[in-house]
Amino acid sequence: MQNFEYYNPTNLIFGKGQIAQLTELIPSDAKVLMLYGGGSIKKNGVYDQVKEALKGHQWLEFGGIPPNPEYDILMQALEVIKKEQITYLLAVGGGSVIDGTKFLSSAALYEGDEPWDILKNKIRTFKGMPFGSVLTLPATGSEMNSGAVVTRAETKEKLGMGGPGLFPQFSILDPQVITTIPQRQIANGIVDAFHHVLEQYITYPAGAPLQDRIAEGILQTLVEVGPVVFEDPANYEAGANFMWSCTMALNGLIQKGVPTDWAIHAMGHELTALYGIDHARTLAIISPNHYQYNFERKKAKLAQYGERVWGLTEGTVDDKAKQALDKTVAFFHSLGVDTKLSDYAREYTGTAEQIADRFRARGWNGIGEHKDLAPEDVHKIVEMSY
Amino acid sequence: MQNFEYYNPTNLIFGKGQIAQLTELIPSDAKVLMLYGGGSIKKNGVYDQVKEALKGHQWLEFGGIPPNPEYDILMQALEVIKKEQITYLLAVGGGSVIDGTKFLSSAALYEGDEPWDILKNKIRTFKGMPFGSVLTLPATGSEMNSGAVVTRAETKEKLGMGGPGLFPQFSILDPQVITTIPQRQIANGIVDAFHHVLEQYITYPAGAPLQDRIAEGILQTLVEVGPVVFEDPANYEAGANFMWSCTMALNGLIQKGVPTDWAIHAMGHELTALYGIDHARTLAIISPNHYQYNFERKKAKLAQYGERVWGLTEGTVDDKAKQALDKTVAFFHSLGVDTKLSDYAREYTGTAEQIADRFRARGWNGIGEHKDLAPEDVHKIVEMSY
Repeated sequence: MQNFEYYNPTNLIFGKGQIAQLTELIPSDAKVLMLYGGGSIKKNGVYDQVKEALKGHQWLEFGGIPPNPEYDILMQALEVIKKEQITYLLAVGGGSVIDGTKFLSSAALYEGDEPWDILKNKIRTFKGMPFGSVLTLPATGSEMNSGAVVTRAETKEKLGMGGPGLFPQFSILDPQVITTIPQRQIANGIVDAFHHVLEQYITYPAGAPLQDRIAEGILQTLVEVGPVVFEDPANYEAGANFMWSCTMALNGLIQKGVPTDWAIHAMGHELTALYGIDHARTLAIISPNHYQYNFERKKAKLAQYGERVWGLTEGTVDDKAKQALDKTVAFFHSLGVDTKLSDYAREYTGTAEQIADRFRARGWNGIGEHKDLAPEDVHKIVEMSY
Repeated sequence: MQNFEYYNPTNLIFGKGQIAQLTELIPSDAKVLMLYGGGSIKKNGVYDQVKEALKGHQWLEFGGIPPNPEYDILMQALEVIKKEQITYLLAVGGGSVIDGTKFLSSAALYEGDEPWDILKNKIRTFKGMPFGSVLTLPATGSEMNSGAVVTRAETKEKLGMGGPGLFPQFSILDPQVITTIPQRQIANGIVDAFHHVLEQYITYPAGAPLQDRIAEGILQTLVEVGPVVFEDPANYEAGANFMWSCTMALNGLIQKGVPTDWAIHAMGHELTALYGIDHARTLAIISPNHYQYNFERKKAKLAQYGERVWGLTEGTVDDKAKQALDKTVAFFHSLGVDTKLSDYAREYTGTAEQIADRFRARGWNGIGEHKDLAPEDVHKIVEMSY
C-alpha cells in the first residue's frame, strides 16, 4: 500500500425529506446565491423545497448553468457574487452545477486578474467561499469531493481544478429526486460512476486488498441496482443505493494507497470539448479500447474484476480479463449507452491526431497510472475508438 | 436504506515515516500536552520521533494512561491541563490513550462541576479542546471517530461518551509501529476490529448492499492479513492493511443507513469492568452466544456473512449461519483468543445475574438492533458464555 492522506470534511445528509435541513445548515447571517441549471428543479419540486427552507435567509438565484459548466456563464455568476456581496453559495443540481459552484467558490476569493488561470495554471484552492449542495442527479461524486471540471466553448477546452478548500460544507442527497430524472441521464450517471471506480481500480495489483474490495463493492452494487433504477426510477431502495454508490465512487476513499489511472477521463474530456458528447458516454467510448491497448499491464486487475464483479470462474487470466471487458461493454449497451465515436459523431476523421496534438501542446507527455502513455499512445487509443 | 448523516473531518495521514508531519499539523502557537500509556513508546522509537517533531513547540507530557483509561488518572491529567493552560492535546498510543484524550478534550472545556457526569449523563460534546493522535496499536478505530470509553475502578464501571466535537483533528498511522507490538495485542486488535464490523453488519437485511459489501471487505481483509501479522508483525504490507482495516471498521462509514447492534459491546464492557479481561477478548466471549441466542433474527445476515466472508456454498440458510459461527470461533482460537468466560476467570458464578442487575439499574431495558433485549436476555447470553 502506498502512503496516503485522507481528509474529507463534507457533511453528507442522506435520505428522504432532508432538503428542509438547509435552514440549519446555512449560517443565518449569510447572503446566499443559489445556483442551478436548466430549470428542471422548478418542475420536480426541488426548487420549491429549497425556497421554503431558505425563507429566513437573504438569498438570490442564478440559473442556467449548462451541462459541462461553461466558463463565460460562470463569469456572469461571478459578477453577481461580487456586485451583490454574496457570502455563501448553494449549488442545487448535478455535477455540472456543483462543479461550476466550486469554480465560483475559488474565483470569488481569487486575487489574480484572470480566473481562467486557476484552470490553465492548475492553481490549487486552499480557501474558497463556503458552499453547500443539494444533489439532484447522482453521477459525478462532486457532492463529496474537492475537484471540478470547467469547459470553455471559445477554445473548446475542458480542464480540471481543485484543492482542499473546495469540499462542499454539506451536501443533501434525497434519493426521491431520482424519480423525475430522464432515463438517459440515469444511464449516464451509472456509467459515469462506474468509470470513476474503474479509473481507481483497473491499474495493477498494489497490495491494497481493502481498497480493491470497496471498489468492487461499488461496481457490484451499480451492476445490481443500476438496471433497476434505469427501468424504474421510482424504486426508492434501488435509487438510494445508486445515489450512495455514485458518491462513494469519487469521494476520495478508494484511491487512497493505490495507483490511479485517469487516462480515460483525459481522453474523454476531449471528445466532450470537440463534439459535445455526454461526459459518461465519452468514457464508454474510450475505456474498452484503453484497456485493450494496455491489456498486458492491466490484465491482472481486469481478471480480478471479472472474477469478483462479474462472477467469472473459467479460463486463464487472459481469458477472464477479456471476458470482463466484454461484460463491461454489454453492461453499457444494456443501458442504451453506445461505445463507439462513430455512434455519436458523423464526421470524426482526424480526431485522434487532433487530441494527440492537444496533449502535446499542453505538455501531457505521460498519462495513466505509469505516467508513460505518450500522445502517440493516445492517438492510437482514440483511433481504436472510432 | 435508512436516512443518515455522514461527517468525519479527521485528517488521516497514513504510511511510513509520517510521524515527522506532526511539526506542521499542530499549530505553532499551541501549548501541547502529549499523553501516552505504559511507556512502550519509549522502547519502540515513537517517543523519540514525536519529540523530534515537536522541537519547535512548547509541550509537556503525561504518561501512564492504563488500558481501559481510568477516570482517576485522567483527572490527574486534567489538573495538569488546567494548571499549565494547555491548548492542544496529542495522544500517542492505542485506543485507550486516544479515548482518554477524548475525555480530556471534553472535560477541559466542560462547565459542570463533575466531569464524570459527561459519562454518567451521556452529555454529548459539541466542542472539545483540539487534539490529534499518533496511533501505535491498531484496534479500536478511535483514531478516526468521535467516541470514547472510560473506566472507573472505584465503581467498576465502563461507560461511553462522544459527540461531533471529539474527532481527532488528525491521526498519524505509520504501520511500522506494528513491528514491536506483542503478539497478544495484535490478536486483540484483529478480534476487536472484527467485532466492530460484526456489530454493524450482523443484524438483519436492510436494503444497503454497498454497506454490506464494505463490511464484508473489511472482514475478508482481516481474515486474510490478520494471521500474517500475528505470525510476522514485521510484514509491512500485511501490517498496513491490518491497520487500515481497523480504522475503517469503526470510522462511521459502514454504520450509515443500516441498523446496528452493539449489544456485544454492552455486555463485554461489563466483563472488563468486573474481571479486567482485555476488551477484545470479552467480545469473543460474548459474540458466539449472542448470535446463537438471537439466531432466528440474525441468521439471514449470518448466512450471507458465511457465504461472502468464509466462502461457504453448501446447505440451507440455517446451515450456513451455523457454519459461519463455527468458522468465526475457530478464527479467534487460531489467534490464541479463548471464547469462554471460564477460560479467563476462576470464579464467575453469578456474573450473568450481576450484569443483568447492572443493566436494570441503569434502565437499559432494550439493547441490540431491535432495542428489545431485556436484562433477562442479557442474563441468558452471559450465562451461555461461561
